[in-house]
Amino acid sequence: MLVLMNVNATDEQVERVCKAITGLGYKPHPLPGAQRTAIGITGNSGPVNAGGVEDMPGVAEVIRVSKPYKLVSREMKQENTIVHFDNGVTIGGEDLAIIAGPCSIETRDQAFAIAESVAATGVQFFRGGAYKPRTSPYAFQGLGEEALQLMAELRERFGLLIVTEAVDEKSLDLVEQYADMIQLGARNMQNYSLLKAAGRASKPVLLKRGISATLEEFLMAAEYVMSEGNYNVVLCERGVRTFTDHTRNTLDLSVVPAVQHLSHLPIIVDPSHGTGKRDKVLPLARAAVAVGADGLIVEVHHCPEQALSDGAQSIYPDQLAVMVEDARKIAPVVGRRVPLNDGTRTAVRG
Amino acid sequence: MLVLMNVNATDEQVERVCKAITGLGYKPHPLPGAQRTAIGITGNSGPVNAGGVEDMPGVAEVIRVSKPYKLVSREMKQENTIVHFDNGVTIGGEDLAIIAGPCSIETRDQAFAIAESVAATGVQFFRGGAYKPRTSPYAFQGLGEEALQLMAELRERFGLLIVTEAVDEKSLDLVEQYADMIQLGARNMQNYSLLKAAGRASKPVLLKRGISATLEEFLMAAEYVMSEGNYNVVLCERGVRTFTDHTRNTLDLSVVPAVQHLSHLPIIVDPSHGTGKRDKVLPLARAAVAVGADGLIVEVHHCPEQALSDGAQSIYPDQLAVMVEDARKIAPVVGRRVPLNDGTRTAVRG
Amino acid sequence: MLVLMNVNATDEQVERVCKAITGLGYKPHPLPGAQRTAIGITGNSGPVNAGGVEDMPGVAEVIRVSKPYKLVSREMKQENTIVHFDNGVTIGGEDLAIIAGPCSIETRDQAFAIAESVAATGVQFFRGGAYKPRTSPYAFQGLGEEALQLMAELRERFGLLIVTEAVDEKSLDLVEQYADMIQLGARNMQNYSLLKAAGRASKPVLLKRGISATLEEFLMAAEYVMSEGNYNVVLCERGVRTFTDHTRNTLDLSVVPAVQHLSHLPIIVDPSHGTGKRDKVLPLARAAVAVGADGLIVEVHHCPEQALSDGAQSIYPDQLAVMVEDARKIAPVVGRRVPLNDGTRTAVRG
Amino acid sequence: MLVLMNVNATDEQVERVCKAITGLGYKPHPLPGAQRTAIGITGNSGPVNAGGVEDMPGVAEVIRVSKPYKLVSREMKQENTIVHFDNGVTIGGEDLAIIAGPCSIETRDQAFAIAESVAATGVQFFRGGAYKPRTSPYAFQGLGEEALQLMAELRERFGLLIVTEAVDEKSLDLVEQYADMIQLGARNMQNYSLLKAAGRASKPVLLKRGISATLEEFLMAAEYVMSEGNYNVVLCERGVRTFTDHTRNTLDLSVVPAVQHLSHLPIIVDPSHGTGKRDKVLPLARAAVAVGADGLIVEVHHCPEQALSDGAQSIYPDQLAVMVEDARKIAPVVGRRVPLNDGTRTAVRG
Repeated sequence: MLVLMNVNATDEQVERVCKAITGLGYKPHPLPGAQRTAIGITGNSGPVNAGGVEDMPGVAEVIRVSKPYKLVSREMKQENTIVHFDNGVTIGGEDLAIIAGPCSIETRDQAFAIAESVAATGVQFFRGGAYKPRTSPYAFQGLGEEALQLMAELRERFGLLIVTEAVDEKSLDLVEQYADMIQLGARNMQNYSLLKAAGRASKPVLLKRGISATLEEFLMAAEYVMSEGNYNVVLCERGVRTFTDHTRNTLDLSVVPAVQHLSHLPIIVDPSHGTGKRDKVLPLARAAVAVGADGLIVEVHHCPEQALSDGAQSIYPDQLAVMVEDARKIAPVVGRRVPLNDGTRTAVRG
Repeated sequence: MLVLMNVNATDEQVERVCKAITGLGYKPHPLPGAQRTAIGITGNSGPVNAGGVEDMPGVAEVIRVSKPYKLVSREMKQENTIVHFDNGVTIGGEDLAIIAGPCSIETRDQAFAIAESVAATGVQFFRGGAYKPRTSPYAFQGLGEEALQLMAELRERFGLLIVTEAVDEKSLDLVEQYADMIQLGARNMQNYSLLKAAGRASKPVLLKRGISATLEEFLMAAEYVMSEGNYNVVLCERGVRTFTDHTRNTLDLSVVPAVQHLSHLPIIVDPSHGTGKRDKVLPLARAAVAVGADGLIVEVHHCPEQALSDGAQSIYPDQLAVMVEDARKIAPVVGRRVPLNDGTRTAVRG
Repeated sequence: MLVLMNVNATDEQVERVCKAITGLGYKPHPLPGAQRTAIGITGNSGPVNAGGVEDMPGVAEVIRVSKPYKLVSREMKQENTIVHFDNGVTIGGEDLAIIAGPCSIETRDQAFAIAESVAATGVQFFRGGAYKPRTSPYAFQGLGEEALQLMAELRERFGLLIVTEAVDEKSLDLVEQYADMIQLGARNMQNYSLLKAAGRASKPVLLKRGISATLEEFLMAAEYVMSEGNYNVVLCERGVRTFTDHTRNTLDLSVVPAVQHLSHLPIIVDPSHGTGKRDKVLPLARAAVAVGADGLIVEVHHCPEQALSDGAQSIYPDQLAVMVEDARKIAPVVGRRVPLNDGTRTAVRG
Repeated sequence: MLVLMNVNATDEQVERVCKAITGLGYKPHPLPGAQRTAIGITGNSGPVNAGGVEDMPGVAEVIRVSKPYKLVSREMKQENTIVHFDNGVTIGGEDLAIIAGPCSIETRDQAFAIAESVAATGVQFFRGGAYKPRTSPYAFQGLGEEALQLMAELRERFGLLIVTEAVDEKSLDLVEQYADMIQLGARNMQNYSLLKAAGRASKPVLLKRGISATLEEFLMAAEYVMSEGNYNVVLCERGVRTFTDHTRNTLDLSVVPAVQHLSHLPIIVDPSHGTGKRDKVLPLARAAVAVGADGLIVEVHHCPEQALSDGAQSIYPDQLAVMVEDARKIAPVVGRRVPLNDGTRTAVRG
């Protein structure tokens, strides 16, 4: 922490602030400058707690400098975290991870039709909502466990890894049981009880960035999961809320290199929620690969005009095929590759 | 819903869009204009679901016009909702409701010292955190049920109504048992499982606006609570996230008349979280009364420099007394009053 | 400036950063902490220019602490600036300044009708647009010098001080000649050539906050004006751009006490642009007085449904009368007063 | 325009609104729905001006639907605008345009050293600030005409096209005389006098997006330039202001496909200002190419730690070479190419 004194702060005021800092158990370091005195604080083992100093006479500003994250930090673990799945697929390594599927599982036919087209593109992960956090209590809320059972079938049939969202502790238990990766949604990024419960789960966690989360808050949410022992966390940028109105959210691709600088955790990008418009998904998916993301998650529907949710941002299966092809061309520029579907990949628990 | 066609859309394209709308079960109304044709849609009983139309040839834009809220709407219930408590205190009526207390209950001594000074100002409600949603898993997380028991004692002793936050279904059960009003925090404003659980509770709910919630999302969160049968919902503006850096959040006072226009629910203002700085709390508290809010919620601490959380934004007890006095002077301008502590108020369940 | 080193920065890296700082002509102060070393920098006479240090090995972050403003700062001048006008009216003193009038001067009849009703309320300042910065080149752009001449007549007739916007150097010369205060609009807050020209003008400047200006940028814009010798600057909060959609902008009332803390300049509030909606103007005007603003500026129109610009946010003359009355009641709570129109006020240059 | 009535609006209220619309010279189309009546408006030749309707009894909301832009719109001109320069170089065609150079021209040696390294990478355009809009009046403001003369020499020597910013009408005249493309900066995006002056200039205009400009405002600024007769406008996304703090601005790459959908004008991306951090420039430059931008503009300095402005975001010449190489690899995925420097390109006016 750093305390900035006013330009006309008296020596006595500086002294009194130093005493207060000492009284809190820290060590003050007054640094007289040309304009004003700054007082550095050391001796703390974590963030300094010195709310009262801010209002002392002569104090202009208090600047916090300690970073609160530990386990997520690249300072703690220098090499990249690579999340491994049973069938040999990874997130965070050389292979770009692609996750695709419908916003919601609506019917058996819908799920199978989409999964088949997803598998045909060589994509390794299938996403599908069983529990849907909807803005309106009157909107379709998902099929629940029935959807989870359908997705377990899809895994057997198409060899796809299953990613689906848990919205509370009850659904988390079921998702952990049926799926390969537990998604925590943007609206729950600071639902700390749920984060801690996910931290005790046995499956990797896909943690989406809150709609107005700073980078620090995003990393601290991951810290919550890791602090309970689950180190397999994959971050996901999915657009933030800004003043703009030409897309549903503003996809903040700069957070990808920023996360990679500060943390060892992998980060993927969701251009579907990040834009909210079908015709923007492919351009932003290409950009996400080029910026260096570890993967993509997109919404696909074979008949989006009849989708029960998120139809306007779901791409068609043939667009998914183009997206995968484009990703395959761009990936080598950033030292990545999109594996071809060589037909040898088999069901996870087959 | 309204579909705007391109300037150069052909008659055939307009016709095809109309057919698609008919196919979805709605009635299209083409309105040829000087520049372009717009197509109104009627025949829907709720929001129109027409994601697919957006991408049809000739379509420039689709504009949603239906409002998704029902129970919260002033169109459904014209008179103001007044929330009544056992001891005759109300929120939403003529009396301005003031809620004050520490961010967290830290010790018995701290809780009693603050409650005593709060009660002395005539304030009717005591707030104190038992379960704290903290950005860091390593920060003080609250005393839990012990804090709830302490607050129940404060109610008996000082006749204060108790408001405290629930962070998950387990803490909700306990808060419902001990407190007079259940607070749901900004981070949980879209934790729909928790909202629904609070909707089944027997106590009024104080619902804080999410840090980047639009007015519609805020009202829809209240709709979730009401849709489960709990109609005693009090909204709370507590600052939103913007680009500014001179306060912790930007207090959006214009949401008060905006809520009052659209909804019958009461709305109070939190200038403590809304600014994050002690010296801004009183000015913004005055402004909140003047704008027409139904009440205030503020953080008070007798020794903020030693507070375990939110010290920098907690006011001193003597500042609280000034704040109440100022509110008392401004309230009549907006047809409100701040009741004097006439000594006749007694403990709720005494 | 403060340089934060990485947790695992080596002593050698710290030393090299210190050397680089010395090489730039400053003095480094390494402060070893429990987690990491911070390096304070002194010896600078203004902001430290050390872009290169940020990328040196071992450096985690560079934190700028010097404030760039000088003349606007309360550290330079402790007592409040009070702007005086020829007829004895002031801004920044005990009297609350109220400025009212139409968005644009449209016709002689419109101008006289509105000015008459404005003068009747006891308001001291008349605003009216002669040069309109409009988003569309095809929208009404103002009557130019003709409007300035009309307003000069209004001053003689009603004893109102005239405030109007200059949009470039040419219009600035004319506004300076005809008006009593030169308004610089939000869109031009960082038009530095115009700011400097206004700094050479002989009339006070009303400087509106840019739509996404931080407090520091706002103060630096005033610094531009003052740096050329014009010390009569009045700041104006008029709403900032955020994600919200229930008002045209978000009125940031917390900037009022924040400005008053950092600067000696007066600050007034514009609830018309700050909300963009007629029914929000009065509530936010009351809030602005209660928060401690030095004045108000509002748009009034006797027939807003026919206004050539900003009709939806213009209040009616009878609403203005209510607003002034409410302001008169609230002002004493913050140590201000709204002078009654005692009929003795006379034309400025009469 | 569309007028939404309240759910409980009476037939009489609907009728009165229809009459008011007729009175304004438009044609109302009442559309009774299941919940409420909407009233479409036709008969307007431009945006409907009906501020007064918003406040009539029974009216819930007024929704504007007309788009105010004309000349910039793809509806007016379907094929892409390609801006041609004297030496055959283009912006908006198949070739990706790359603009590179220092933030400010500081000295003859600095300018020549950087220009030489820029030319060596095959980049076609050189940028360099002669007039600098700086937040502080005390910061380096540029060398003015001397810098323009130096850049004219660089053009002769290295065959580079010159792009530099004009900040007012006076500097615009000089920039038009010396440079090949006139840059208008973000802070001046709504300086309408300057936009109109640029619209009368004989050189192409590079128009940067304002820091909080919506897409519509951005396009309307271009409309201002075009409305005066200059159709050679190139748009530039350079980051917008949001709540995030990990980059200086948030680069909004989704605006690229959004512009390309609505307008025929080319759009390039500035990852230097868009991120403000050297280590983010290359990743975001790659992303900008992948998203489909028509070009890049970046700040390069051979010795950024000594740059008089923007040092922290300037890349080194060898990073520029990598950036160009990466762009060359990604461009074909989006149907573009980065031309090799084949040595045949010659000075423009040589």
